[in-house]
Amino acid sequence: MNNKKIGVFDSGVGGLTVALEVLNKLPNEEVVYFGDTARNPYGVRTKEEITKFSRQIIKFLLTKDVKAVVIACNTATVAALDSVQKEFDIPIFGVVGPGAESAVNSTANKKVGIIATEATVRSKCYDKYIKNIDSEVQTFSMACPLLVSIAEECLYDSSISYEAVKYYTEDLVKENIDTLVLGCTHFPLHRKNIEKVLGEGVKIVDPAVRTVEILKNYLKENNLESGKKEKLNHEFYVSGKTEKFAKICNSVLGGEYTVDKIDIDKF
Amino acid sequence: MNNKKIGVFDSGVGGLTVALEVLNKLPNEEVVYFGDTARNPYGVRTKEEITKFSRQIIKFLLTKDVKAVVIACNTATVAALDSVQKEFDIPIFGVVGPGAESAVNSTANKKVGIIATEATVRSKCYDKYIKNIDSEVQTFSMACPLLVSIAEECLYDSSISYEAVKYYTEDLVKENIDTLVLGCTHFPLHRKNIEKVLGEGVKIVDPAVRTVEILKNYLKENNLESGKKEKLNHEFYVSGKTEKFAKICNSVLGGEYTVDKIDIDKF
Repeated sequence: MNNKKIGVFDSGVGGLTVALEVLNKLPNEEVVYFGDTARNPYGVRTKEEITKFSRQIIKFLLTKDVKAVVIACNTATVAALDSVQKEFDIPIFGVVGPGAESAVNSTANKKVGIIATEATVRSKCYDKYIKNIDSEVQTFSMACPLLVSIAEECLYDSSISYEAVKYYTEDLVKENIDTLVLGCTHFPLHRKNIEKVLGEGVKIVDPAVRTVEILKNYLKENNLESGKKEKLNHEFYVSGKTEKFAKICNSVLGGEYTVDKIDIDKF
Repeated sequence: MNNKKIGVFDSGVGGLTVALEVLNKLPNEEVVYFGDTARNPYGVRTKEEITKFSRQIIKFLLTKDVKAVVIACNTATVAALDSVQKEFDIPIFGVVGPGAESAVNSTANKKVGIIATEATVRSKCYDKYIKNIDSEVQTFSMACPLLVSIAEECLYDSSISYEAVKYYTEDLVKENIDTLVLGCTHFPLHRKNIEKVLGEGVKIVDPAVRTVEILKNYLKENNLESGKKEKLNHEFYVSGKTEKFAKICNSVLGGEYTVDKIDIDKF
């Protein structure tokens, strides 16, 4: 047993969809979340910058005495996971490998679509991971930058979101994909509209699901699971403004959480 | 007569709508355009940062031997116009004062709507300028960050743009405005959808129109107009990637322009 918390971080609000998966699947665990809202979007940053940011954030999370860290951001997973796993002495999990695994398990016709940020698409990380598992799977990617901005504006239930999802998935649908990977943690926020646009013929893969399964197994195998608590105390921190983040946080997680601002450059 | 060029700068592609107005109304003049695409959006920057950026850009434009500069960005006009007008020895024009003037001339019922970036709305610059001219005019503002992202993605003719315009102007329409100021130079790109959503009852004010009239008068009065040229040679520079900028540039201005990348930090 280990009652320490689980650190989760992202460039902004997107990783809240991963935090929600942790809350749902590991109901005894507490989360310390960091959203780097002052420095996002990470998509325009270099690998070196993102690695530096990730290092600072993990150092901050360690001051909160976490027992494991989930990089709940595809861009940061691609840029920094390997480096920080070597540098730090706690388990660190990324979302890309688990997402690729789920996609391969899901597809029947071996045609997988991936929607992500420009940086993730450019890195071809999902394509490489997927082909490593099954070289016969064909991948089709689409960068959807507006789905990030729309989510950050808390408009994922709007007709703006619906029209944007329709626009971005049009070419993927033409390729006859039967599986779509949500390769950016913001995108599960648009899930209702994604399902409405794509219909039942396309299975949606949210990499957070398999990521949290892997985390759960790890905690179990290493005797790190938390004991039952009377009241869970999740913590939320950002590097930028707290208001908009708090609004989306409470909407996604369903609760009234306090959000504190941190000077991340000190770490 | 003076055959030097006119410098125009913006945080990104938005100022191209101002450049277009210059090309249309001053058909003998040549433009040197700078888009600070590597450091935008300016909305999240401090007054000091934006003033520093504006200073660097004007220094760069001076290496191109311009005879006047237009700050084709509302955020930069608010943050930096006063400072740079004092520092540099060439005429520098902003877009906010002219836009406010046009709005007051346009409104009959003295109810003016303003759509802009968060930074411009927060500064209340249009409200102040408008009330300075006519204290009876009521102003109603709405920050529309997605209209910037949608324009940067070249999707201003799409149904995503239409839905976003509808969403952002809903409350302004309820206030019975008869005039809407496009308080961000990106927004004229959405003009077709803005007109479609608001109908004929609301007059649209593009501050670029009055800004370029003022520039034209200034050049005439000071004998700075260019003579007729066989072929105009406009120049386009950015601090970030050239491809997406070139695409929008050619779509807005209608032509095949070369875009060059500049290391703006050297200035």
